[in-house]
Order: sequence, then structure tokens, then C-alpha cells
Amino acid sequence: MKKIEEYIRSIPDFPEPGIIFRDVTSILQDADGLKLAIDSMQDCLKDVDVDVIVGTESRGFIFGMPIAYNLHKSFVPVRKKGKLPCETVSASYDLEYGKAEIEIHKDAIKPGQKVVIIDDLIATGGTVEAAAKLVEQLGGVVVKIVFLMELAGLEGRKKLEKYDVASVIRYEGK
Amino acid sequence: MKKIEEYIRSIPDFPEPGIIFRDVTSILQDADGLKLAIDSMQDCLKDVDVDVIVGTESRGFIFGMPIAYNLHKSFVPVRKKGKLPCETVSASYDLEYGKAEIEIHKDAIKPGQKVVIIDDLIATGGTVEAAAKLVEQLGGVVVKIVFLMELAGLEGRKKLEKYDVASVIRYEGK
Repeated sequence: MKKIEEYIRSIPDFPEPGIIFRDVTSILQDADGLKLAIDSMQDCLKDVDVDVIVGTESRGFIFGMPIAYNLHKSFVPVRKKGKLPCETVSASYDLEYGKAEIEIHKDAIKPGQKVVIIDDLIATGGTVEAAAKLVEQLGGVVVKIVFLMELAGLEGRKKLEKYDVASVIRYEGK
Repeated sequence: MKKIEEYIRSIPDFPEPGIIFRDVTSILQDADGLKLAIDSMQDCLKDVDVDVIVGTESRGFIFGMPIAYNLHKSFVPVRKKGKLPCETVSASYDLEYGKAEIEIHKDAIKPGQKVVIIDDLIATGGTVEAAAKLVEQLGGVVVKIVFLMELAGLEGRKKLEKYDVASVIRYEGK
């Protein structure tokens, strides 16, 4: 059986020189790879009591939704500013140059609900840290954060050290 | 049992006056609603022979991925320009003001593969028409297009009349 890492295509110098881009579309392009990715992420939740799956735009939608369906949970998208139609709370986070802002519907999480955040990749951890703050602002409890891939050299876990974080594939570099 | 329409929240005058926005996040926010949405869309595929599920950024990711997982198929994202790291083909389509461009990885679909395109909503049909052209440019065959919701008043089906199109919820207005 093919190992999960073998499904991930690495692209040197994308989006800029010196960066090795880990292309998650390549695992989805193979039905066995797709199943293995979802099942491996879901395995990280087998002892976790959860009410709501949160996924960040847009690759968190890709991995979060099958897990929400399989576990019979609700799914709440965290989106870029201006995309959600009802009342929201928002948080901003630093990018390499400038800032980005994400939002969540105010009524999407009820106080005390147990939330798992799903994303494809942890790099610096900025997006998911902001998403976790939004969940907490609504009274939710972040019980676990699951990534398919981790770029360990970027030390994103430091930003998330108060949370229970799991990743399926760990790359030592950046 | 609650009917599927009852899970969809309608927001008048969003994103602009005169438009009734059908908020798909409200169905996802309920575990039963989420399951009903996916199962109902999947029901449209029960007699369809398919190799690849294609979803358009980003709400097509939400509905396409659980269906790809459940049917043990691959999933190919159609993304906005500049988001895919490898070689792509692109297509542009008209928006109310101006144009938008979407892309697909060139190696994502092999000639002769049977493709189902999934999206949340058919309005004017422009995005999915462009996605279908991309699939065909790669030699894929669009065997079915499935939407959760259809705004019948916008006549998007006219643009897609050469395809087999299904929608789960039909709204007569715009």
C-alpha cells in the first residue's frame, strides 16, 4: 500500500523562490489518496468528544466537510471578510506582508460547544490561531485542531501551544 | 422530519437590495441538515457512472468532497486564477460587472474520464458553464451536474442545456 506522503506532490519555488509548495490537490486526485487523507485525519479524533467541525476557507472546507459528514456533526465555515451573509465576528492576523481578516457567523457556535478545527496545512499557524479566537469569542471550546500536513520548520505549533494539535504528515523544513 | 428547504435561511437584500440570498451555511450548521443535503445530492448520482468529482471554489468544495469520499472517487478543485501550483488551463466567464477567471490542473482529468460537477447553487450558470468547458478541454466527459439549490428565475439551465443537470431545491425567483 502506498504511504500517505507519496500522494503529496512537492513543487519547488512556488509561490516564490525558496519555498517548497506541498500540493494537496495531488492527494485528492487519487480516490485511494483522498480516502486515506480523510481517514487519517479522522483517526486523530477517535477519542475526542466534539459537537462542531470548523473549517477555514477554502482548503479547510475540503477536509472538514467529509469529517463532519462521517461523524454526523455540523460544519461551520470560517471565511474571508465579506463572504458570510449574516451577523459575524471577525479577527485579523498577520501575513508576510500586511494583514488578512476572517469571519464566522455569530450564531454558528453556541456557548459550551466543543469544536474541532480542521485545515490542510500548518505553516506559521496564523490563520488557525485567528479561527480559534473566533470560536472562543462565541463561547466555544476548541478541543482539538487537526492538520493533514505540518511544516515543522515554521514552528506554527508555538502559536497554538495551548491547544491539542495533531498533524498526519510532518515535514521538517519550511 | 424537517424538510430540506426548512434548513435554508433566506436573507433579503444581500449582497445588494432586491436580492434574496439563500444562505447555505444554515443547513451545514445542523448535523441532520448537513447529512440530508449531501445524501439528497448523492441520490441524484445513484445511476450515474462517474470517475471524478469536480467542485468549484469554494462552496463546490463543501458539497463535492463528502460525495467524492462516499463514492470513493477522486476530487478535482476548480479554483480562482493563481491558486493552483502546477500547470493549468483557464476559462473566463462574465460577472454582472466584469469578468472572472477559473483554472484546473492540466493533469487532473484524463481523456475519457467521466466527470460530475458539484456546486451549491445555480444562478446564471456562468461559473459551472466555464468549469464544464475546462473539463472538456482536458478531454473529460461531463456526465452530470448537481446543485443543492436552483434560482429558476435566472434561467441558468439555459446555459447548461447540453448537460444533464439536477438540483435538490428549486426557488422560482431570482
